[in-house]
Amino acid sequence: MPNVPPDLTRLSLDDKRRLVFRQLQAGKEQEQGRGVPHQGDRDGFAALITDFEPLSVARPLPQHRLLESMAWLMAHARCIKEGIRAPARVQAVWDEVTTQVAHYGVSPDIIRQREIALAPAACADHALADLGVDAIPIYADLHTDPHGALLDRRMALYAACVDQLLDQAYPPTEARTPPDDLIHVTCSGYLAPSPVERLVSRRRWTETTVTHAYHMGCYGAFPALRMAVGFLAASQVGLSQPKRRIDVLHTEYLSLHADPLKQAPADIVSTSLFGDGFIKYALYPVTLARQQRKRGLKVLTLKESIIPDSAREMTWNLAPHAFDMYLSKDIPLWIGDHILALVEALLRSVHLDLTQARHQCVFAIHPGGARILDVVKQALRLEEAQVAASRKVLYEHGNMSSATIPYIWREIVADQNIPAGTRVISMAFGPGLTATGAVLEKSEGAV
Amino acid sequence: MPNVPPDLTRLSLDDKRRLVFRQLQAGKEQEQGRGVPHQGDRDGFAALITDFEPLSVARPLPQHRLLESMAWLMAHARCIKEGIRAPARVQAVWDEVTTQVAHYGVSPDIIRQREIALAPAACADHALADLGVDAIPIYADLHTDPHGALLDRRMALYAACVDQLLDQAYPPTEARTPPDDLIHVTCSGYLAPSPVERLVSRRRWTETTVTHAYHMGCYGAFPALRMAVGFLAASQVGLSQPKRRIDVLHTEYLSLHADPLKQAPADIVSTSLFGDGFIKYALYPVTLARQQRKRGLKVLTLKESIIPDSAREMTWNLAPHAFDMYLSKDIPLWIGDHILALVEALLRSVHLDLTQARHQCVFAIHPGGARILDVVKQALRLEEAQVAASRKVLYEHGNMSSATIPYIWREIVADQNIPAGTRVISMAFGPGLTATGAVLEKSEGAV
Repeated sequence: MPNVPPDLTRLSLDDKRRLVFRQLQAGKEQEQGRGVPHQGDRDGFAALITDFEPLSVARPLPQHRLLESMAWLMAHARCIKEGIRAPARVQAVWDEVTTQVAHYGVSPDIIRQREIALAPAACADHALADLGVDAIPIYADLHTDPHGALLDRRMALYAACVDQLLDQAYPPTEARTPPDDLIHVTCSGYLAPSPVERLVSRRRWTETTVTHAYHMGCYGAFPALRMAVGFLAASQVGLSQPKRRIDVLHTEYLSLHADPLKQAPADIVSTSLFGDGFIKYALYPVTLARQQRKRGLKVLTLKESIIPDSAREMTWNLAPHAFDMYLSKDIPLWIGDHILALVEALLRSVHLDLTQARHQCVFAIHPGGARILDVVKQALRLEEAQVAASRKVLYEHGNMSSATIPYIWREIVADQNIPAGTRVISMAFGPGLTATGAVLEKSEGAV
Repeated sequence: MPNVPPDLTRLSLDDKRRLVFRQLQAGKEQEQGRGVPHQGDRDGFAALITDFEPLSVARPLPQHRLLESMAWLMAHARCIKEGIRAPARVQAVWDEVTTQVAHYGVSPDIIRQREIALAPAACADHALADLGVDAIPIYADLHTDPHGALLDRRMALYAACVDQLLDQAYPPTEARTPPDDLIHVTCSGYLAPSPVERLVSRRRWTETTVTHAYHMGCYGAFPALRMAVGFLAASQVGLSQPKRRIDVLHTEYLSLHADPLKQAPADIVSTSLFGDGFIKYALYPVTLARQQRKRGLKVLTLKESIIPDSAREMTWNLAPHAFDMYLSKDIPLWIGDHILALVEALLRSVHLDLTQARHQCVFAIHPGGARILDVVKQALRLEEAQVAASRKVLYEHGNMSSATIPYIWREIVADQNIPAGTRVISMAFGPGLTATGAVLEKSEGAV
């Protein structure tokens, strides 16, 4: 275990537990000694989300360019499928698809750019029509299969992409202590061993526990948070080895699942809405995080609920070529009808009401799409400034599924205008329909 | 929420939290009052695994019959693929495949029977050759595609099977309180919404949180345990709503992923080893479980580790027709080399050594195959009687992936010869290679 400081590797489990408890205790005493208000027993078990590290494998591409490439690819695939070659008929398909994409595609006013890990860098400056579909690995055999590559090929590309991200996230030469836990969140690629398990295997991190938080869609950051908070709490009460740091890694490679023959309005919406998104962050017990002066978000409470009878509104299932998405246009209405009850329940558990929250809190809302932000804003009667971080992340990245909310948390932590102590009401939505949320508290890392 | 007692639905979160704390406290006082030895603070956070309910959709089929059907199906698919029709050549393929299956297939001495959810009941008494492949839904179009159905069709069958299991597990007319959490464990079917999310949606269990513990293979019960223990600990320290009961549901529909054209020795081993397996159980805070006189296993400690450089030994990946398994024949050797270190680390954290454990403890070992039980027994120098529960579950069900270990736990809880207080050393293995374990303690449910 080259990356574990030698003193730790020689300690028994019990010694390690004693060491961590001593540090937790020291953190509390230090706090009390310096006159920082003591936050009660709950703090000893609370977790801080910190160390946000966005990751990427490709420069984001401008949305106008992506819409153009998407239309060209769809028209091209349709001509192959239908055996259309005569220039006038090809032009008619192109005109029709372009009109549809212009009508249903998400506008560059809402999403400026998206990372598309599949696309070569040249796509930023050249139309896909000029580069040719061969430039994109899953479309290399489009002439024989206009749906694109089969699922096993796409999963191999997913693995290669995540391997590259993991080398960014954990440089092989870095001497940092490995995390006690590594939670891998994705709804876009499943392999066993997963790329994360292979990383832990080749780095010989035998004290690192890997957990997969898979197939929970856009709200995936919240189950991961539940797991991380639970693992820390369980370790602090002695039910597992003591844990100092849990890393969470989101790898959402959504462009991998495109099928250019899916051309219904709902398909055009989703293909123009989702961007690839990758991010790593860490959770520490709050007392340890304070000693290390970490800035971040303390987890105060979590709640999740499935909206009755809304199961059909959104699906994400496995198919021979790719994972297959369906989004109903009514999703924002369902969320608009149910979000108030979720937020009120969250607020009750931290003794706030919505009027107080509106004046004192910041909101981190998963921007499933622009309309979702609008309905949540309206249902909770928020000002535009209160959803600005969500709007900004959508504009700069598109909907990155589970990776989106961590990017918004990162904005809030970095924002100097949001003082320490500010409560952050965070929420996300996904298949189920599931509505989930947390109350967090900004912490500036002062000891 | 028709299944929630009316008093609970009307309570605020804080009222519920107070209620649960009061019950926890009452449990402790009751214990102390009746002279049961007080187990220290740790007990207040510990969880009990209980209420094991095996589920099934089909009668198990005898292994000799399954081997015969498997050989027939493989020969049939190969003849289709290779365009073989002449009776003499068909006979030659049949002879060759039968010899291979007899040589590499798991013997009926090791596995007596397996549940195969795909197979109609008639398969118990009739050869598949007589029934015809059309009797099995994924082979209905074998003549046009000898790999069997494509992945989307298999996932739809998975969903229908799990819907049926969920109606068994949670009868629609039952008035029992829904669980606070429902953890769904599987490595054989992914849909969003999952069947479990759809259940919660149509029953309107708006206070039930669903978590997917997916794609972790045969060791999946342990990550689920980590999650459940963590969710209970987090709720008990006030980081989420109070939780009284977490249900865990395993749905391993492995026969769904068969591909009769996969005919290498390793494929014959895995197809004849894995059986479908379904089971539900619950975790309660120990103090609540005692009040309800639950018999079960208290979770004392958990540990998991990835064996360095063994990633290639076992894979389970998505492909266009089905999930695709590879098992190296060296897996038992890797486990044999590493199991001692894992078990010693587990024992250290509960202040036991291996010599004590050999005399005092029961072992619940995932029977990945008969050889895995043999090497673990040898590495830990156990008696055959100490691995009897594992051997028995393998014999009666085959390897049911993540569902196997809960069946073994259930055997141990039901076994009158194993007294309360007995420590249970439990372990499982899967892709990574991951080796994971827990120390549990049998509890008889006396107040």
